[in-house]
Amino acid sequence: MPHVNPDAVLPLTLLLVFGSAKLLSEICERFNQPGIVGEIAAGILIGPSVLHWVEPVEFLTVLSELGVMFLLFRVGLEVKASELMRVGGTATIVAVLGVITPFAAGWALSLLFGYPQIEAIFIGASMVATSVGITAQVLASMGYLQARASQIILAAAVIDDVLGLIVLAIVSSVAKGSFNVTELVLTGVIAIAFTVVVARWGTRAMKRIVPKVEVALSVSEAQFAMAICLLFGLSVIAVFAGVAAIIGAFLAGMALSETISRRVIDLTNGVTELLVPFFLVGIGLHFNLTAFSNTSTLLFAVVILVAAIATKLVGCGLGAIKLGKADALRIGTGMMPRGEVGMVVAQLGLAMSIVSEAVFGVVVFMSVATTVLAPPLLAVVYRGVPSRKVEPTQTRIG
Amino acid sequence: MPHVNPDAVLPLTLLLVFGSAKLLSEICERFNQPGIVGEIAAGILIGPSVLHWVEPVEFLTVLSELGVMFLLFRVGLEVKASELMRVGGTATIVAVLGVITPFAAGWALSLLFGYPQIEAIFIGASMVATSVGITAQVLASMGYLQARASQIILAAAVIDDVLGLIVLAIVSSVAKGSFNVTELVLTGVIAIAFTVVVARWGTRAMKRIVPKVEVALSVSEAQFAMAICLLFGLSVIAVFAGVAAIIGAFLAGMALSETISRRVIDLTNGVTELLVPFFLVGIGLHFNLTAFSNTSTLLFAVVILVAAIATKLVGCGLGAIKLGKADALRIGTGMMPRGEVGMVVAQLGLAMSIVSEAVFGVVVFMSVATTVLAPPLLAVVYRGVPSRKVEPTQTRIG
Repeated sequence: MPHVNPDAVLPLTLLLVFGSAKLLSEICERFNQPGIVGEIAAGILIGPSVLHWVEPVEFLTVLSELGVMFLLFRVGLEVKASELMRVGGTATIVAVLGVITPFAAGWALSLLFGYPQIEAIFIGASMVATSVGITAQVLASMGYLQARASQIILAAAVIDDVLGLIVLAIVSSVAKGSFNVTELVLTGVIAIAFTVVVARWGTRAMKRIVPKVEVALSVSEAQFAMAICLLFGLSVIAVFAGVAAIIGAFLAGMALSETISRRVIDLTNGVTELLVPFFLVGIGLHFNLTAFSNTSTLLFAVVILVAAIATKLVGCGLGAIKLGKADALRIGTGMMPRGEVGMVVAQLGLAMSIVSEAVFGVVVFMSVATTVLAPPLLAVVYRGVPSRKVEPTQTRIG
Repeated sequence: MPHVNPDAVLPLTLLLVFGSAKLLSEICERFNQPGIVGEIAAGILIGPSVLHWVEPVEFLTVLSELGVMFLLFRVGLEVKASELMRVGGTATIVAVLGVITPFAAGWALSLLFGYPQIEAIFIGASMVATSVGITAQVLASMGYLQARASQIILAAAVIDDVLGLIVLAIVSSVAKGSFNVTELVLTGVIAIAFTVVVARWGTRAMKRIVPKVEVALSVSEAQFAMAICLLFGLSVIAVFAGVAAIIGAFLAGMALSETISRRVIDLTNGVTELLVPFFLVGIGLHFNLTAFSNTSTLLFAVVILVAAIATKLVGCGLGAIKLGKADALRIGTGMMPRGEVGMVVAQLGLAMSIVSEAVFGVVVFMSVATTVLAPPLLAVVYRGVPSRKVEPTQTRIG
């Protein structure tokens, strides 16, 4: 955005991001496609790939991170920890197979295309982690969060995040040449312990605390204020425990899911309606078409994309095959979108001069493409599953 | 925040700002003081003045600006344009006297204390503009927005912003030595025209558009999405028209006030509950005690503070004296807080090497102190005015 009054930059950027997201979302809905695809496409359109109107600057990244934190918190509010624990066994198999298969495929294919060993490992690692935000948003907006397949997807995505962290730790320590097994095991144990403890006892703790909050506190909207403090607090602890902040946000929501008032859900909806477009547009903003200057990179990108889709479908699907083909397909599709997580791995490799600019472009392409493809596919494979939307209180004043 | 895992910086900063704001707000409420004072005090406490935990970094500034935009939008939603236009005459007198009196006093006192002519003009200019955000938040939280005095305060604050802009334009062009009367008049005319046109015809336009939105659009929460687009859109136009973005946000809310659904108000509340603390803490973060190293600066700061309070009380109060002493006192008190506006003027002077670091500290002290003093004073002078709080829908699920 050149030559604009500096005071106008903030509101103009906010208008471009939010307005284009809602406009393209509306167009997608008209063609019976999930609005989320339009919001990511809006980021590609206004970003460095096409119109160059908006760059992924720092404050947009912060709004995007805040948006995905609130999105996962919002999803958590609709998920009961006890139900998630019940599907824990299946979810673990789904997550483990969904990590091994794409890593192996990405690594082998990269070697086949002549990439050096260490770069091939990074490409494999960038294909591992599922972006739970995208799937959660699609399932929530369609009212499918309560379905068995959805519960397994959410649980598996949480486990996947822990596994992804361990893979990332291994890969970067191999790259640095400082491989330390004790440290890796410790990292894994702390991450798992944090997740299990909060999932297991969070709800119980909140059942004792929440009813007292409104009585004890004089501050306005005390329950919402407490919920936000828990959300930020568990996000901080999650990072220190070694998992992503959004996992903490999800666990905070889940801990509150059985006690919180409808009012807090409404207020949270206000925040997600404002900020989630910034998360989705942010994914699109990172897309860069100029990376594909030669045909061999383009071919490699297509191969990696196909592998990224197939490995999650097969790996995660196989892990859940005992539930029947339909649920296995739903779970495989739900674990497909890589969103921002794959890009973080590739960025690390880029910063360590292990991953080239071209390969970074390939990973970003794979991440965005799986993310854009998953929502319409989810709509198809979930057809027939009973939908349970939480209806907003729709009274009119004035 | 030194030596922290970089991934933890964002959630930790959010937790410190939001958590400390709510904690100190709660403590203030316990002592029957407005919570807003606690939230500003939280900024002073965790900021560079005392604990050094949080610096006023870019992303906090963005959250703060977004917060005050939504705050003014939220206030606008409860204000009818027709009612504001009705008090326009009185409000104009209040605003004009409330600009001339502090400017004259600040300028004269600065000369008396031996400051050079041009620096004295900047000090006077920094005392001009009222921070409508603070007063609006206090009046809204106490349910006094519908009172006659409140309507005059809001209208006068909008006019005050336009006048403040003209004063700022004059002062900075004098400082640059490029005084151009035609340009200044044009700036003033455009700013006034934008404000009047939106206030006059915005409501009518929205009465035609809003009822069609829910019918025509498929996107989720279509009314809220449209409201946000209007909010950002008018903020952008406001900046180009020469007034502050928050005036555009306020006008957007006011244009929607007679047509928007209760649902949009609830969703907006979610955003303001999250972001307004960032605006309030942000004001406190700019406070810096180290500026007062010598007694003559300290004395000057106290004199300027007293003048800042007295001149708005007398100037604005006199402008509204025909409404009786009680309302005149309410209006004078409501126009008292300078918030972030005075700091912007002083910052400009600092950047142009006209204002010294010590004088900048004095202006910040005056801004924060008037802002902290106004809420408890407002609570006192509004005693006895009928309060009309909008009650939230408080149903419990789970």
